[in-house]
Amino acid sequence: AFIEKQAETFEPEIQEAALYALKNRGKRLRPLLVFSSGWKASKQVSEPLVRLGTIVELIHLATLIHDDILDGACLRHNRPPLYQRYGTNVAVLLGDAFLSRSMELASEFDSMDICRTLTRTVSQICNGEIKQTLQSASGEAMTIDSYYRIIYLKTATLFETSCRLGAQIAHYPDSFVEAVAAFGRHLGTAYQLLDDLMDCVGDEQNAGKTLGTDLKNGKATLPFLILDQKLTSTGATGLATSSRQTGLEFETQFDQYGVFQDVEAYFDREIEAAEAALDTCETAPPLPYLRKMLSLIRSKMTETLRKPVYK
Amino acid sequence: AFIEKQAETFEPEIQEAALYALKNRGKRLRPLLVFSSGWKASKQVSEPLVRLGTIVELIHLATLIHDDILDGACLRHNRPPLYQRYGTNVAVLLGDAFLSRSMELASEFDSMDICRTLTRTVSQICNGEIKQTLQSASGEAMTIDSYYRIIYLKTATLFETSCRLGAQIAHYPDSFVEAVAAFGRHLGTAYQLLDDLMDCVGDEQNAGKTLGTDLKNGKATLPFLILDQKLTSTGATGLATSSRQTGLEFETQFDQYGVFQDVEAYFDREIEAAEAALDTCETAPPLPYLRKMLSLIRSKMTETLRKPVYK
Repeated sequence: AFIEKQAETFEPEIQEAALYALKNRGKRLRPLLVFSSGWKASKQVSEPLVRLGTIVELIHLATLIHDDILDGACLRHNRPPLYQRYGTNVAVLLGDAFLSRSMELASEFDSMDICRTLTRTVSQICNGEIKQTLQSASGEAMTIDSYYRIIYLKTATLFETSCRLGAQIAHYPDSFVEAVAAFGRHLGTAYQLLDDLMDCVGDEQNAGKTLGTDLKNGKATLPFLILDQKLTSTGATGLATSSRQTGLEFETQFDQYGVFQDVEAYFDREIEAAEAALDTCETAPPLPYLRKMLSLIRSKMTETLRKPVYK
Repeated sequence: AFIEKQAETFEPEIQEAALYALKNRGKRLRPLLVFSSGWKASKQVSEPLVRLGTIVELIHLATLIHDDILDGACLRHNRPPLYQRYGTNVAVLLGDAFLSRSMELASEFDSMDICRTLTRTVSQICNGEIKQTLQSASGEAMTIDSYYRIIYLKTATLFETSCRLGAQIAHYPDSFVEAVAAFGRHLGTAYQLLDDLMDCVGDEQNAGKTLGTDLKNGKATLPFLILDQKLTSTGATGLATSSRQTGLEFETQFDQYGVFQDVEAYFDREIEAAEAALDTCETAPPLPYLRKMLSLIRSKMTETLRKPVYK
């Protein structure tokens, strides 16, 4: 309710577009991480926790609104993206307004420290988006290291911050705060690995958004980077050539070189690290909820790998 | 130097574009207002004052970068706008990054109050831009009241905040802080009235930016609103018709109906209010600098009215 109420903080002219963006069927993973990490007991969700959940969702939605313009996406949350429904100008401005509103809410905390963590996170996300966009536009070969740096900046930091500040606001001890922060970082990385895999072999209906745009937009994600490595090491032509292939040719090569098994291994490594971070904690109310999120993302991975739909 | 140093806080890929935006021949009016309002004596410009000047300039540059995309401008600070030089995608992302960086710097103040004033100001600017863009797209008639609301939100608030926080950081007494805040608000309004007049009759070389875009983009600024009022009150056809006229026809009508004298009267009212705000203050070091800015903007107005170049 508090997320949707944010629409009222904007000028009347933009409230309809703001509501369109706020009322969506997204999973609201980040607010969920905030609530889980700061969980005490039933009926004990505090006002600062609700505010934090709203801030991280606004930040996330702002990046989606701008990203969809950049990617030329046609589907988001099973509907036309905001820029298609209200025009690019409105989408640029509403993204800015969501970002500003999130920072306004962040400055309402009593603790300067919380505000600082949030503003730094937003800067990191912007830098991640920039790095990805410019690297793909430059045509320079991407390494797996720089791919990891990008997904850390654009995705894992906001997961990490959601967990860290959720636990901090709930006054959990420092050791617990650091543990859930590490959990969030690894979960966020795993989530982006899944998201990027789904972009090449996921089901659009199921994902609720346009898929297959990464390669089209020159974004070399992990499956392509792995394939490229394998092709290079076997002396075959590299990705520069293969990216001109049709989806079907990729399908054959992904199978032939066992690319998905490798992606799964990278994914599992993050899931295990996330689990290990939680294992360092004494029993605390958040743990079952956080473990549940881990298993949800893991089953989504299994499902995606079971029946790949090539783009 | 600190403004240009901000480029180093971004990922290497974007530093060139960031420097392009940061090293410009803009007037840096807002940092100048910060320094003037917080002026104590020579060699006493404190680090927080430099940081504040950088924050307000970053906020301003972020809005210019996004505005130029929306307006399809071809000239900014006597050069191609960023989106033309580096592409729209980079411009969307760099605007976001400037905004985030400004908020990150804002969260470094010890005072939560300063951070709050800044985040609220950014929200107001975004709302002003949205209001203007949507009002012009809707085709609905604009009133002079709603025009004033828009220029308050998009321009006057940042002038007000620059003055208010400059004085606050320099530990001037509350009565002085409120006086320079009012000064900034009226100066900002006067500045936007001048800027909008220059968009219809200014010299592009002199302004260093594309002019004549307001009417093209459906933005009804004060000269057109006044003309519209006069045409309606004399029973002539309204702006809906006149906006399809060529520049030359406007020229005749602006003269015939004495539109510029009216614009000047609105402008003078703001200048006088700004002066009156300063007159309430006991002698303080900032006053001569603030009065100097007032007289600079007033002479720019006189110059623009002396030799109008119709767009």
